[in-house]
Order: sequence, then C-alpha cells, then structure tokens
Amino acid sequence: MQPVKGTQDHYPYDKDFMNQIARRFTEVAKRYSYLEIEMPALESLELLSRKEGEEIQEQIFVLEQRGKEKLGLRFDLTVPATRMFIQKQKGIAKPIKWFYNSRMWRYEAPQKGRLREFYQFGVECFGTDNIEADAEVIRLAIECMESLELAAKDIVVLINNRDLLEGLLDSLGIKDIDDVVTIIDKREKLPADEFEKELTKVGVTDGQLPKLLELLDSSLEDLPEPNDKAKAGKETLTTLFTILDDKKDFLRFDLSTARGLAYYTGTVFEIFDRDMEFRALCGGGRYDRLVETLGGEPCPATGFAIGYATLRLLLEEKVLMPMPRLGPDYYVVIVNDTVRDKAREIAISLREKDYNVEMDLTGRNLGNQFKHAAARDAKETIIVGPKDLEQECVTIRDMVSGKESKVPLKQLL
Amino acid sequence: MQPVKGTQDHYPYDKDFMNQIARRFTEVAKRYSYLEIEMPALESLELLSRKEGEEIQEQIFVLEQRGKEKLGLRFDLTVPATRMFIQKQKGIAKPIKWFYNSRMWRYEAPQKGRLREFYQFGVECFGTDNIEADAEVIRLAIECMESLELAAKDIVVLINNRDLLEGLLDSLGIKDIDDVVTIIDKREKLPADEFEKELTKVGVTDGQLPKLLELLDSSLEDLPEPNDKAKAGKETLTTLFTILDDKKDFLRFDLSTARGLAYYTGTVFEIFDRDMEFRALCGGGRYDRLVETLGGEPCPATGFAIGYATLRLLLEEKVLMPMPRLGPDYYVVIVNDTVRDKAREIAISLREKDYNVEMDLTGRNLGNQFKHAAARDAKETIIVGPKDLEQECVTIRDMVSGKESKVPLKQLL
Repeated sequence: MQPVKGTQDHYPYDKDFMNQIARRFTEVAKRYSYLEIEMPALESLELLSRKEGEEIQEQIFVLEQRGKEKLGLRFDLTVPATRMFIQKQKGIAKPIKWFYNSRMWRYEAPQKGRLREFYQFGVECFGTDNIEADAEVIRLAIECMESLELAAKDIVVLINNRDLLEGLLDSLGIKDIDDVVTIIDKREKLPADEFEKELTKVGVTDGQLPKLLELLDSSLEDLPEPNDKAKAGKETLTTLFTILDDKKDFLRFDLSTARGLAYYTGTVFEIFDRDMEFRALCGGGRYDRLVETLGGEPCPATGFAIGYATLRLLLEEKVLMPMPRLGPDYYVVIVNDTVRDKAREIAISLREKDYNVEMDLTGRNLGNQFKHAAARDAKETIIVGPKDLEQECVTIRDMVSGKESKVPLKQLL
Repeated sequence: MQPVKGTQDHYPYDKDFMNQIARRFTEVAKRYSYLEIEMPALESLELLSRKEGEEIQEQIFVLEQRGKEKLGLRFDLTVPATRMFIQKQKGIAKPIKWFYNSRMWRYEAPQKGRLREFYQFGVECFGTDNIEADAEVIRLAIECMESLELAAKDIVVLINNRDLLEGLLDSLGIKDIDDVVTIIDKREKLPADEFEKELTKVGVTDGQLPKLLELLDSSLEDLPEPNDKAKAGKETLTTLFTILDDKKDFLRFDLSTARGLAYYTGTVFEIFDRDMEFRALCGGGRYDRLVETLGGEPCPATGFAIGYATLRLLLEEKVLMPMPRLGPDYYVVIVNDTVRDKAREIAISLREKDYNVEMDLTGRNLGNQFKHAAARDAKETIIVGPKDLEQECVTIRDMVSGKESKVPLKQLL
C-alpha cells in the first residue's frame, strides 16, 4: 500500500504545507502581474527531446505507445510553458509573464530532497532581453523566499552572467567551453584537488589552470575585460546589481555559478541556504535560445523555478514550516438520537456562516464523540442535549481549557 | 505546438476559471471539515487493475517498464485515495474525510466534455456506513453546485439505492443482475425500444419486462417491498430523503440511476443539468467493498466526484462562468530613462502594499507602453515623468474613462 518509489502521498498535513507555500508564492507573483497557467502532464517525446544540453533524456518517463503517438511525462515545466507560448507567440502582447505551481517526473534514483515525482513553483517571462526583466525575476524569487520568513541570514543568491564567464574562458584560450563550464558549475560539490583534476581532464592546461582559479575567486569589480563578450557580460551584471541594490544583502557574485545547462545565455542565478547544506532552492536565468530550439520564432526569455522538496528541508531546519490548521472550529456532540435532527440543523447553520464544523456520522456514543472531537483537534464542542434544548440552549466546551458554558441557541446562530 | 490530443493547455483565463471553481469547492468542503490531500499521478499497474466492474482497464496509460516496476497513470482519484487510506487505516481516527482537486488520465476517444487528461473535485468519507454520511456527501455536492450559483431550476440530483434496485430485480426472478443494472443505468441515453431490446438480450423475459418497466417508473412510496433487501434499501432511502428535506427541490428518486460500476453498494446518486443536455456533472455513492478489494480491512466508504469539463459546459450555457480578473491594478508608465529608477521604486512600494503592478520591462516608448497597458487590461496607469517628479507628483490615468489626475507621491504611497 506504499506509494510508487520516488513518489509521495500528500496527507492533509503535507498538503496544507504545500498549499500554504503555493498561496504565498502566488501572492508574490500576482503583485508582479504574472498570470497563472497549467500545462498537460503529457507531451510528445519529440518535443521533450528537443531541449539541448541536458542529461535528462534518459530520465523521461515514456508511455507505452498506442496508435501513432509517442508520449512522455514532462520532466520540467519550462518546456511545456514554452510550447504554450510558441502556440500564441504571434498574436500576443509581450512580454508574457506566467507562473505555475505544478509537478513533473524524472526517472532517477530517489534521494533526500530529490524524488521521481516532484513539485515546483516557477515563472517565465517571454519577449524581452532587457536587464529589467532579469532583475524582476530575481527580485521575485527573493520575495518568494521572504514570504516564508527566509531572510538574508538564511539564504544567498549566487549570480553570474554566462557571457562574462564564457568571454573570460575564451580569453584564457580554453577550447571546450561547454565542458569546462559544466565542471565549473560543480565546483561547490568537489574538493579543490578533484575540481582541478576534472578541469585538466577536459583540456585546461597547466598554464591556464592558475589563471582560471584566480578568476573564479575574483570580485566582479576586479575582473578584467579582455574581450567584448566579457565586457558586455560584466556591464550587464553591474547594472543588475545596481537595480537590485535594495536586496544586496541577499546577493553574491559568483563566477562559478553556471547552471550547467547549455541553453542558458546571459544572467544565471541560484539560491542556496547560507550554510550550503542543501541542494539549490531555486535556479533560474536567461534562456534566449530555447523558444527557437523548440520551434518558435527567436524570442528572449528568462525565469526561475523553486523546488518544494529542498525548500521544505530548509524550512524544517529553520523551524519556519507554516503550521497547518486542520481541526474544525466546532464539533457538534449529539447526546442522544432524539436531538440528532436539531444537532444537524445547528451544524448546517454554522456552516452557512462559513465555520468548519464536524458532527458525528457514525452513531457513536457520547464518550466516543468527545474522543473523536479531541482526535480531530476541534477548538470547541457544542453539546446538544434534550434538557438544554428545552431551554433553547446548548453547552459549549472549550477543548483546550475544558471550560463549559451554556449558550442560548439564538446567540450561537 | 499543439498540446497532445485529448489534453488541454490552461492559459491564464482558463486557469483562473479552474482556480475559482476549486476555491469555492474547497470552501464548501472545509465547512464540512473535510481535509485536502494529493496523491501521486503514478500507481502500480497491479493496484490499478484491482478495481472491479469497470471497463477502464483498457484505458490506463501504461508506462514503458524500467526495472521491475509496472506503472500506470491513475485513471481516477478514488483508487489512490483508498490506497492512502489503507496505508493509515489502523492508526487513524475514523471517519476519515478527505477531498482533492486533481487530474487523471484515460486513454479514450476525446469528445465534447470528455478529455484524456481531465480534472475532478472529489470527496471520500471512509469509516462509517451511517446514512448521515450519505446525506452529508449529497448535501456537500449540492452546496458545491450552489457555490457556483447553480440552483434547483438548473440541476437535479438523481438518487437511488443499489440494495433496493437489486432486491426488486431479484424479486422479479431476474438472474444476471449486474448485466441488467448496467443496461438500466443507460436508460436515459437509449430510445425506449432500444432499451427494451438490450434488456431482453441480457435475459429479461417477456414476462419480466413490463413489471420491470413499471417499477422503474414508480415513485419511492409506491414501490413494493417484496424482500428484506428491497425493504432495507427503501427504508434507507426514505431516511435519506427526510434528512435532506431542506434540499428537496434538488432531489429526485430514480430507480434507473445505478452508477454502472459493480462496486457501488448502497446509496448512489448523480447530478445532471435539468434539461439532461450534458453528461453527469457529478457521480457518487457508497462503495463499502472497495477498501477490501484494494487490500485493506473491510471498511465502509462513500464519496463523489465532480468533473470540471461538463461543469464548464453548463456554466457557459447558464452564463455563470466566474469572470477572471487578470489585469494589473496599476501599470507604471515610464516617460523617459531619467525616471526609470524612480518608476521602479514606485512599483516596488505599491507591490509591498499588495497591489498587482505591471511596469515596462522592454524599454519601449511611451505610446507603446500605453498600448501594452491597454492590452494587459490595466485599471489605471501611473505616468512617471520628470516634470511631475520635480513637484513630487505622478499623473494617474483611469484606463476606462481616460480621466487623468495629478497625485502627490506621498498620497499614492
């Protein structure tokens, strides 16, 4: 009766947590005038296979073929969102700003904070290459974290620019830039000597290595501008930091942040917990080539995604988990069957006033009704008995203090 | 760039519709102290194959096997919810009352109001066979409809009891009760002569047929009580109608309503539009054997599901579609680059006050910003220009009336 390996049953406590996070993120996204969308879980394998530079093709959950269609479950939300954008690309006023709270599937070995079925909140902004858009999505990501009471002491936003990184690598004479970027992106996870070994493996020479390491540890101001690409990247990044100056406590320039994926093109960023204990909480950046890769007219785009699993680990550690409120406001206790109809009427009236009301549905005795009211974590029980009813009253018991008081029905309803 | 056949892209207008429905249903479910859950999309084929009496085994989307797991996409939400219940069955205080808003997949020919990927709102109540629970889920279903302004003039709840139906069929000497019930359930969809022919095919004799037809058209009061099963079913149904007396305008006894599926055991109901133009909006009832069938300890249960697709067709016809509110409260128009920083500050301040604020992210000129503000259906534009700013003012334009007024920044923020 276990769920399928790598998937999770969301019981009420869990689901409430997810809902509360989603509600807060949704509020933030709406302030920025992003609109919510939802995409199908199924896409054609042909579409899913077009996204370049990812090792996730092997991880697609493929459906048994029936008829002509070769289908798979979406492995991310950016590809289906981009397909939806392309379908309306011609007629629609740009930029298009969309967000979603949804799930996806990847066939990989489940581990802590990584499941086969997982949920993300994400935003996509199609139709502008302006740095204002990059700044907006980063600000939005930070405000999402702030909406959960996560502050600059808890998290850090690592920011980089792919043009800057690639320009600098080029200036060192490094050839296999994609491979080197992939290694650089793993720097945080590797011991220093391992990191250097990996770089050497993909062709970084002994002459290039110390220069590369020095660059990776430089501040943004100190970085050279050896070519136009690096210069443009540095300028863009400097503007970005200026626009986001009021959030500077969250931000850190990090030339090693590359987001691995070949399709990122300009600004890239990742959010981590300050202690770098967990995987990235959020990853995002500019992907100006994806729309074209997936079959649309060339169109710049930027966005990010926040995964729920890692976020949850951090919130638990920081004791910032939103507390669920699952118990009823009132539990209507029925003293005996002669008052059942009246008790039901009381429940109906309170529900009309939008209270969360539980009532016995089993015919159990008085003692067991109280036990059930306690198990359901009811705030108050309303004891409906024949004697009280003769006086047009009920007895209300506060389930915390145990205090009871007689209340006229008129007053209650 | 089309979505996969039988699936739907939910653009913001659509998604907002779905959200508004879900929000209203959620409010109703919470009043009844139901708790929200979410289940994985994937289940083992073995589990999915255990539900009896459905022709949907053929309709399961099966995943290509990798490793040992044979997996499929859930074809309903009751099976996964029941699995979740069974997992906690022993330790948990009953009844368990859960609801969900989620999607499922069936491989069948797409048609109007029927998709391959579709959404339902549903509730399940595990752990009581008391008629109060049957009454509660029916009341809850009706209140869901009422929350969308659907009234008794718009919809009808057809109610029956499987014991009553089966007891009566038995008393006529009908043998293949399951087959006959399946035909009876299709009565609404078949012409009278076709219906009679189908009944004859499954073994209803010429002697039984007129008696059966007479029973199917009887009122509840007029029905005979030829055996204990029929008598018990009639009694239960009579109690149910009494409890739901305040909703009687919605209710109609209908001995033909059988819900087809063999696993229903007592009360069954379906909600239709009054004109019977569309497929069922809602189907539900008691399924006291499913928990055991799926591997749990025997446990009574009842519930219902409302499909979004048919509901939408009806709401469109009745012009009761909740109107989406997608445009921003304010669109900040930037007169020239010298005021961009100040404009952004204004946007940030208004967002802190929880307004939905759009701002140019493209560097487009003034005219195009107004065009975009109109395309985004902004209520008001805030025009930020250097001259106004010298006086610590901005100009606010109402986008409907076109009226403009100068407003001090202090007042706005």
